[in-house]
Amino acid sequence: MPEPIIRAFGILKKCAAKVNMDYGLDPNIGKAIMQAAQEVAEGKLNDHFPLVIWQTGSGTQSNMNANEVIANRAAEILGHKRGEKFVHPNDHVNRSQSSNDTFPTVMHIAAAMEINLRLVPNLKTLHTTLHSKSVEFKDIVKIGRTHTQDATPLTLGQEFSGYTTQVKYGIDRVSGTLPRMYQLAQGGTAVGTGLNTKKGFDVKIAAAVADETSLPFLTAENKFEALAAHDAFVETSGALNTVAVSLMKIANDIRLLGSGPRCGLGELILPENEPGSSIMPGKVNPTQCEALTMVCAQVMGNHVAVSVGGSNGHFELNVFKPMIASGLLQSLRLLGDASASFEKNCVRGIQANRERIAKLLHESLMLVTSLNPKIGYDNAAAVAKTAHKEGTTLKDAALKLGVLTSEEFDNLVVPEKMIGPSD
Amino acid sequence: MPEPIIRAFGILKKCAAKVNMDYGLDPNIGKAIMQAAQEVAEGKLNDHFPLVIWQTGSGTQSNMNANEVIANRAAEILGHKRGEKFVHPNDHVNRSQSSNDTFPTVMHIAAAMEINLRLVPNLKTLHTTLHSKSVEFKDIVKIGRTHTQDATPLTLGQEFSGYTTQVKYGIDRVSGTLPRMYQLAQGGTAVGTGLNTKKGFDVKIAAAVADETSLPFLTAENKFEALAAHDAFVETSGALNTVAVSLMKIANDIRLLGSGPRCGLGELILPENEPGSSIMPGKVNPTQCEALTMVCAQVMGNHVAVSVGGSNGHFELNVFKPMIASGLLQSLRLLGDASASFEKNCVRGIQANRERIAKLLHESLMLVTSLNPKIGYDNAAAVAKTAHKEGTTLKDAALKLGVLTSEEFDNLVVPEKMIGPSD
Amino acid sequence: MPEPIIRAFGILKKCAAKVNMDYGLDPNIGKAIMQAAQEVAEGKLNDHFPLVIWQTGSGTQSNMNANEVIANRAAEILGHKRGEKFVHPNDHVNRSQSSNDTFPTVMHIAAAMEINLRLVPNLKTLHTTLHSKSVEFKDIVKIGRTHTQDATPLTLGQEFSGYTTQVKYGIDRVSGTLPRMYQLAQGGTAVGTGLNTKKGFDVKIAAAVADETSLPFLTAENKFEALAAHDAFVETSGALNTVAVSLMKIANDIRLLGSGPRCGLGELILPENEPGSSIMPGKVNPTQCEALTMVCAQVMGNHVAVSVGGSNGHFELNVFKPMIASGLLQSLRLLGDASASFEKNCVRGIQANRERIAKLLHESLMLVTSLNPKIGYDNAAAVAKTAHKEGTTLKDAALKLGVLTSEEFDNLVVPEKMIGPSD
Amino acid sequence: MPEPIIRAFGILKKCAAKVNMDYGLDPNIGKAIMQAAQEVAEGKLNDHFPLVIWQTGSGTQSNMNANEVIANRAAEILGHKRGEKFVHPNDHVNRSQSSNDTFPTVMHIAAAMEINLRLVPNLKTLHTTLHSKSVEFKDIVKIGRTHTQDATPLTLGQEFSGYTTQVKYGIDRVSGTLPRMYQLAQGGTAVGTGLNTKKGFDVKIAAAVADETSLPFLTAENKFEALAAHDAFVETSGALNTVAVSLMKIANDIRLLGSGPRCGLGELILPENEPGSSIMPGKVNPTQCEALTMVCAQVMGNHVAVSVGGSNGHFELNVFKPMIASGLLQSLRLLGDASASFEKNCVRGIQANRERIAKLLHESLMLVTSLNPKIGYDNAAAVAKTAHKEGTTLKDAALKLGVLTSEEFDNLVVPEKMIGPSD
Repeated sequence: MPEPIIRAFGILKKCAAKVNMDYGLDPNIGKAIMQAAQEVAEGKLNDHFPLVIWQTGSGTQSNMNANEVIANRAAEILGHKRGEKFVHPNDHVNRSQSSNDTFPTVMHIAAAMEINLRLVPNLKTLHTTLHSKSVEFKDIVKIGRTHTQDATPLTLGQEFSGYTTQVKYGIDRVSGTLPRMYQLAQGGTAVGTGLNTKKGFDVKIAAAVADETSLPFLTAENKFEALAAHDAFVETSGALNTVAVSLMKIANDIRLLGSGPRCGLGELILPENEPGSSIMPGKVNPTQCEALTMVCAQVMGNHVAVSVGGSNGHFELNVFKPMIASGLLQSLRLLGDASASFEKNCVRGIQANRERIAKLLHESLMLVTSLNPKIGYDNAAAVAKTAHKEGTTLKDAALKLGVLTSEEFDNLVVPEKMIGPSD
Repeated sequence: MPEPIIRAFGILKKCAAKVNMDYGLDPNIGKAIMQAAQEVAEGKLNDHFPLVIWQTGSGTQSNMNANEVIANRAAEILGHKRGEKFVHPNDHVNRSQSSNDTFPTVMHIAAAMEINLRLVPNLKTLHTTLHSKSVEFKDIVKIGRTHTQDATPLTLGQEFSGYTTQVKYGIDRVSGTLPRMYQLAQGGTAVGTGLNTKKGFDVKIAAAVADETSLPFLTAENKFEALAAHDAFVETSGALNTVAVSLMKIANDIRLLGSGPRCGLGELILPENEPGSSIMPGKVNPTQCEALTMVCAQVMGNHVAVSVGGSNGHFELNVFKPMIASGLLQSLRLLGDASASFEKNCVRGIQANRERIAKLLHESLMLVTSLNPKIGYDNAAAVAKTAHKEGTTLKDAALKLGVLTSEEFDNLVVPEKMIGPSD
Repeated sequence: MPEPIIRAFGILKKCAAKVNMDYGLDPNIGKAIMQAAQEVAEGKLNDHFPLVIWQTGSGTQSNMNANEVIANRAAEILGHKRGEKFVHPNDHVNRSQSSNDTFPTVMHIAAAMEINLRLVPNLKTLHTTLHSKSVEFKDIVKIGRTHTQDATPLTLGQEFSGYTTQVKYGIDRVSGTLPRMYQLAQGGTAVGTGLNTKKGFDVKIAAAVADETSLPFLTAENKFEALAAHDAFVETSGALNTVAVSLMKIANDIRLLGSGPRCGLGELILPENEPGSSIMPGKVNPTQCEALTMVCAQVMGNHVAVSVGGSNGHFELNVFKPMIASGLLQSLRLLGDASASFEKNCVRGIQANRERIAKLLHESLMLVTSLNPKIGYDNAAAVAKTAHKEGTTLKDAALKLGVLTSEEFDNLVVPEKMIGPSD
Repeated sequence: MPEPIIRAFGILKKCAAKVNMDYGLDPNIGKAIMQAAQEVAEGKLNDHFPLVIWQTGSGTQSNMNANEVIANRAAEILGHKRGEKFVHPNDHVNRSQSSNDTFPTVMHIAAAMEINLRLVPNLKTLHTTLHSKSVEFKDIVKIGRTHTQDATPLTLGQEFSGYTTQVKYGIDRVSGTLPRMYQLAQGGTAVGTGLNTKKGFDVKIAAAVADETSLPFLTAENKFEALAAHDAFVETSGALNTVAVSLMKIANDIRLLGSGPRCGLGELILPENEPGSSIMPGKVNPTQCEALTMVCAQVMGNHVAVSVGGSNGHFELNVFKPMIASGLLQSLRLLGDASASFEKNCVRGIQANRERIAKLLHESLMLVTSLNPKIGYDNAAAVAKTAHKEGTTLKDAALKLGVLTSEEFDNLVVPEKMIGPSD
């Protein structure tokens, strides 16, 4: 069972005790539960949660596990023995609750916290670093590539601005799913009706969770949907899938642009993280790109698992809860951690191989179009064909054919003028 | 090539001609192009677009197809012959454009229109009808089911309110992707730099498309991202995947609740669309649920195809464009049409089998918990066990055991009091 | 890193030492390596393998981890200190090997062993039990259901024979992928050429692994394919995906057929694994079905992850190796363990609710077709309509309409005669 | 509805009429049905099949469509009018059949024919051409690339032998699924029991289909499985997914190796299919690779759709049949056609850019390891570092450092000796 779920149980049970005291729970017991639950929330009692996710599809066992751990610890705090049930797992800790509403609630708490505390901050750092690279590289004109073939030039900064934008939108995409993730099922009890709760319990407990986590949780607008479906998880998983697709593209570009040292594209110099081969200088395996793209593939796979689980609910309860929770939380953790590692160990240290970039740009035949206005299409084509056939530069070919002087060529072929619209 | 792409080409080329006239295109030619393009936008020239999607990954052939059809038709309008190139496909119709920016532009126009004109309206109608069913059924108390097992009661209206909420959020999810779908690549030309366009062309053409479609299109904030990635399509596909997951759940519930006529759950009476078996009354195959769930499975599959395509871009251009476009547009059309058909031919006509619902509810043993306060846990358990063992109702068992009178039982066991929190 | 990979490293390194002695490795060192590697193969040194799968995509770090653990342990065995490099991780343990061929080799060893020792035996047990259930239930005639609607009868044994066949074919499907899984990359070294190995090394090491594992491993027919692609893993993952699809269908049927106790289909009585509710007799949550279907969803997701990883290799090396390995091995373990648990804790204990099955069958209107030959289509239809309208049985309706005597009805309507072709 | 399904209906109905004559069908009518069905099998009556796949999940409408078209045409053949029902769609054409067994039967017939007549032959041709390329290129030594970085050399022929093996195994994978695809559901009628058929009908009709198609069809071993599950389709779809993964890898490699003309890897010269740019010689967009990889992504997506559909059957009938059929048949057609096109328009015409390959190989620093034995590790490392730092070749560096003569260098550094194991 993912740790964020266990910690979220601590948060929820603490809040439940707090609200239950408003509804008549003995304050002595209530406070002890709150203290014990706080320890669970801090991860101090993780060892007492041995369950795997392949259990009942409602997560009942994990809820009971939490109730028992907290009841025992609360009893202990009050000077009683474990197992004595002075604090009762059901009557006290689980009061006004059911597995069927607690488990979806901790799923939402755990996911919202992972999004806010891990994924989004790490994506923001990655975004900032990519943006600073796009500024750093803004004057480096390089060959463009479309269909993997040479195309008209752009700056390396422009290329990185595309990546920057992808990550920026990724943050927007993930954030855009939060309104539904902030909705808590708590108060729905067994089938969504709220049987065995008091009016207002649902609103109060969501407010308590919001207070405890400083995140804008609210009671779910419809508890039937909140138990029977996990569309919010499928939705967020879809946003992560998009982020994975973006990062796969970026990491692939970076490893290909950094390929070499001699026989690849070689436009980027990637930072060396592992001690390099002492005999093979310049060979830097793009291990960060590899780890990141593996993560992206796994996120794409988890998304299908979560979607299949989400589509298979029956009647009042979806019973793929632990798998859905685990899939999304793994994706959140992997993407969050891999983004951070990729930023720190790769992107931040990327250098442009200016010499190589310039060489490729000037060897390219794509600049021939600049000659059109001056020497006409036919002559320009002849220059390109000559250069291609003889393996020379455009300039060499132009001079050989005598259609331009060296100075004229240099005045006409200015890649820096090809990187934006004209006035 | 999906028809919405062809029509979007009509819209785009019309707008391009309009803007190009600002930048010096001969108004005579410009106006003819606009008129010809309008015909493409209206689907009048569909027959002239024979291409399949399995072509160049940039959609170049389709762009050239559009340029040529429009050039020929514009020439015709001006009294010239087809093929004479009086109106030139490249110099006039494709002016300031490249396949690399037109194709992503028409992808976005087509998808945004399908979302706004087909999917969202149909989901809204479905939402309205589900909501009215939840109101219609608000007083029908029925057995709840969790883990496919009998659970505490709820109303059929509450059950339908869960479906209603799923569809409502589905609309929110799809709509939430529009800000990025409204961004147009046009003006990026070959690699995103806008080479061969004039400053301001990109903003003006997005404004013209917005004007033409009455949708808030804008020029893409970053043209490099807009050509090299199709994250916006992956994102929207993710929203559709969530909608598919929701509809799969709803349709499965409805066909199971409508199963029978004698040997199923039988709580819902589904409308008979096909002429039923004349010898087998009451057997109504849930064909609408079947068509809808098949659509949902296809949408989930298309989502993976679109995601794989989206993740495989290289450098300045993603070359899975026609497949990505086709996948998303098929999903939009299928979900839109299937939602409409499901609403009209199924949901709207669903009737509650009140008799059957009441029978199941009162046969259930789940109501035994209501006896606890009066006769104590042990006696209540004995009642349930007796009923289960002897296959009788709780009431019969209670009377037999002599723990309650008939009147007492009826006063205690009131499912209507079990469908919400208490005061 | 999954444990089967670590153990497979033990097997491989043991075999490598054995073969390397043929090619001149000091027997003293070779034997110590063999002994140390054997300990790894037995899982005794698992604690020394702390690496996660999100590392270099070639698994280099895990190979080096294995080399170092074994070198240190071998040195220890020979009375030297760890870290002293008396046995050298590269020169001795990794001799004639490269990460690029060892990692795919251990992937294949680990997967083939998990298939042979875990998945297939457990599927066979499940198959046997399903088959014995189909025999046990061979005389229980029940209503059939198509489109979730009542249909013509079959026996419960026939229904279970369908599940039995699905599992049988699942075993065939998984087994059918083994010929390619038994092919080992070892001997390909860095790019598949076998540079730095001696002729025959590849054949000998595969033979040694075959000998060690008693499985028919062979050297890969083409080492370039074996390093650059992991199609064998994608293929096996596809077979597991099919098994998951089968088991999802079976588990869904079983939980629906066992739904109730009062308000569901109730034809099967599932074994109670968890202590049931003391107050709610007969309510047995199908937790085994839930755990199994969650596993199936995860396997379907892992399959997409493995496929995406498999499709993204570049040039001489696929660098999604650890993720691909982990995905398939998790699927193998989950399916293997869940099949065993499902067999033991669910299928084996399934009982038919004969009373309920008979009741549903005889209440059904589907048997009306049996009346056709005797009373004609129109009368038969009238009987069915009357029964449907009045909620009675066919027999009651037939008697009421006076078209048949009770005896005639019983002679005509014999579900036992409807469960097979006629002579 | 895919055309192969319609044609398969022709084959099946022809065979049914033939077998039904053995069981008493009027030969006059039977022969007319056979003739009419033959026309359907030949695609002559395709226009009479207007149905889409988004219908009832059992394909009932398509079966009735076939029955009616054939009945009308058969009546016509016998000199009667359409609609007169001289030949009855149900009593004659559909005799002893049900939609529930005919639709899965035509699914299997259609898929098996597409595999045998389209996909496998085209993959075989692709395999042959790849193999002949691997022979053609067997002496061209080139730089290897792992992690996208320069690695030890191999021959271009070896590289292509990897692709060849992938395709060879792909054929094996698809063929390996045929034993289950050859099993026909016909004879199971409504729920698998064979009610309303005569004993032996199932075996005879499978034999007739085998005879008609010259493919080894057999009656399904278990008809319950054959109606309730479509695991055979999921399985074959999994094989196609593996083929798609293989082809994605191959096509990606080929477009990257062919990238350029000046600023890419440039080792391969791809055939120019479209009229190239007249001004930009050497720029050949890898459009065949693009079409193929789009197809691969779609196949991977269809696989998920088919799997989701396959996992969602209920009781005696899977009702995702038309979607499952359509998904697999589209994948078969796309992969078959794209393989043929890729072979013909791309692979067959690939040329090695020997000059470029040699240049890259000799510029590489990866050959430095060859110097170790002669000048020692430290000197070799110094040579590599000097070359890397100064951007020269290894030879230049070696001469500059004075550690070797030119002749010595040439004798030592022989890439041709690095492409296999040593004696």
